[in-house]
Amino acid sequence: MTDPTTRVHDLDETELLARIFPLLPTGPAVVVGPGDDAAVVRAPDGRFVVTTDVLVQDRHFRRDWSTGYDVGRRAAVQNLADVAAMGAHATSLVVSLVVPGDLEVDWVTGLARGLAEASAPAAVVGGDLSGGDAVVVSVTVHGDLAGRDPVLRSGARPGDVVAHAGTLGTSAAGLDLLTCGAAEPRDGAPDGGGPLHPYVSAYLRPRSPLAAGPAAAAAGATAMLDVSDGLLRDAGRLARAGGVTLDIARSDLGPDVVALLPAAVQVSVTTGDDGDPDRALRWVLAGGEDHGLLATFPAHVAATGLPAPFRPIGVVTTADDAPTVLLDGEQPDVAPGWDHFRP
Amino acid sequence: MTDPTTRVHDLDETELLARIFPLLPTGPAVVVGPGDDAAVVRAPDGRFVVTTDVLVQDRHFRRDWSTGYDVGRRAAVQNLADVAAMGAHATSLVVSLVVPGDLEVDWVTGLARGLAEASAPAAVVGGDLSGGDAVVVSVTVHGDLAGRDPVLRSGARPGDVVAHAGTLGTSAAGLDLLTCGAAEPRDGAPDGGGPLHPYVSAYLRPRSPLAAGPAAAAAGATAMLDVSDGLLRDAGRLARAGGVTLDIARSDLGPDVVALLPAAVQVSVTTGDDGDPDRALRWVLAGGEDHGLLATFPAHVAATGLPAPFRPIGVVTTADDAPTVLLDGEQPDVAPGWDHFRP
Repeated sequence: MTDPTTRVHDLDETELLARIFPLLPTGPAVVVGPGDDAAVVRAPDGRFVVTTDVLVQDRHFRRDWSTGYDVGRRAAVQNLADVAAMGAHATSLVVSLVVPGDLEVDWVTGLARGLAEASAPAAVVGGDLSGGDAVVVSVTVHGDLAGRDPVLRSGARPGDVVAHAGTLGTSAAGLDLLTCGAAEPRDGAPDGGGPLHPYVSAYLRPRSPLAAGPAAAAAGATAMLDVSDGLLRDAGRLARAGGVTLDIARSDLGPDVVALLPAAVQVSVTTGDDGDPDRALRWVLAGGEDHGLLATFPAHVAATGLPAPFRPIGVVTTADDAPTVLLDGEQPDVAPGWDHFRP
Repeated sequence: MTDPTTRVHDLDETELLARIFPLLPTGPAVVVGPGDDAAVVRAPDGRFVVTTDVLVQDRHFRRDWSTGYDVGRRAAVQNLADVAAMGAHATSLVVSLVVPGDLEVDWVTGLARGLAEASAPAAVVGGDLSGGDAVVVSVTVHGDLAGRDPVLRSGARPGDVVAHAGTLGTSAAGLDLLTCGAAEPRDGAPDGGGPLHPYVSAYLRPRSPLAAGPAAAAAGATAMLDVSDGLLRDAGRLARAGGVTLDIARSDLGPDVVALLPAAVQVSVTTGDDGDPDRALRWVLAGGEDHGLLATFPAHVAATGLPAPFRPIGVVTTADDAPTVLLDGEQPDVAPGWDHFRP
């Protein structure tokens, strides 16, 4: 069908868009789809949720590791998780894409497929394309609250149970495995081809438990956010926004740490260090981009059963001095997570 | 207040956001503003309009010509014009911003001010910041149709009047004046300082007749779009979408061309060419980025008065063979406009 050697500068904008549009399925929320000055989207309860995130080549992804398909999935998921963290389900998204002229058209169409697949049944309703020296993908996702109040970061109250849905540390493990060369990103097929290492996949194509967001809202979650910058750092945000302290129980994270130990050993063997006993724990506590959901629930909700796949990992207590995050009642001795302008 | 030499990499992300958030006023449509995982915005009639556009340094703007404030205004206006072209008024926007670490913080806060000023009373409800080698600004704007049908590109019918609101060719004139050195971009003040040359201002900080969009919809416009890539090229889009021909009357563009003649002479004198008799006409017909609105109205609407500031510039006729744009009944002998991947 497509000549895989065709590059963006071989087509004009209309021709390029003509290859992208058919890959972007419509959805039930779409009144007017792509192709006009703007799209029109349904907002059934008279409000919509909106969030935006940007991915920059060589900052957030490497083109020798990530295919366009991977980047499309990741760009979608990090935004979809933000919408889910408000308790909403996604209805539609728009995309701005900056690409070098010598980028393969297949990379761009792969990105469109990845976006569309990760977002369905939400529809891609619009976008903009520009030339530039590096790939930049900016995605804006819209969601519907189905008449419920949004679940804010600020609602955690002493006595609430802290719960998490999704994986912790697998994306960071994947990144470290790739960085030290213990794992290869892929077999080179344009859409990712054969099976990826599960942690490499978690890093290149994160999966967020999106349905857990609206389920948490329906169950009465008092606060929620998407864990994108590491458990401790994001838990700190809930603590400060609510003026409370979150006390995480290390034992509840035991299975996550144990599952990552073989990967931690693999990194130690590959890098030739003597074995870092805390590497797996650090992945779980400070590793970002798994895009799980961290929420707080009233104790009576937890007692009768948290919505799947949430599981308790701690409790909310009164902030003694400043709101903070504790690990088994003590200040954790781990770097908290990711900052975008300081390496 | 702010040290003008402070650069982005001197602050962490939280500190940088703390300088930006106060510059982003809220608006009547905002339920939940910036700072949570996502914003929540009112959509009173159960639908919203959405469009996105991206500006890339050294493709769409030069940092030695444009301040952050200018880029903020321009990024807002090109999206606001798309919302207006659907017949909607803007309610809210989100911004993705990629900036080099050595960029002055004042440039970033200037961009926030420019965005906020150009968008008011629409609110900036969210954003994302990332490092990168060049500035990239991606803006998504949302609008409200107030219960009306959106005005699509496809509705033009034979017998309709073609009308335009806004300026034609002034942005292209400003760009050419800057490019040949006949005008200086500014006096160097961070917010643009003293008065800009009017055409330079049209290029650096375009103004779109935003209120004319909803007014056109209320008056019964059959089709509408934002003129961003040049009158002929964008008129061609209306023609193809509607399966009609648009016949533009050169005489109706006379005042636009005459107004630009001194600037055209200035470019000729500066570049030392012998005078290009068609330069001003070319600016009017093919110059992009004035962000006026091109619409078609039923003849009876035009007869009783077009909504201000629309003025008639032609008529819609049946497409003989392929839909096209004519100038006084003939194929125009002018390059049609701008393509993003071919210089």
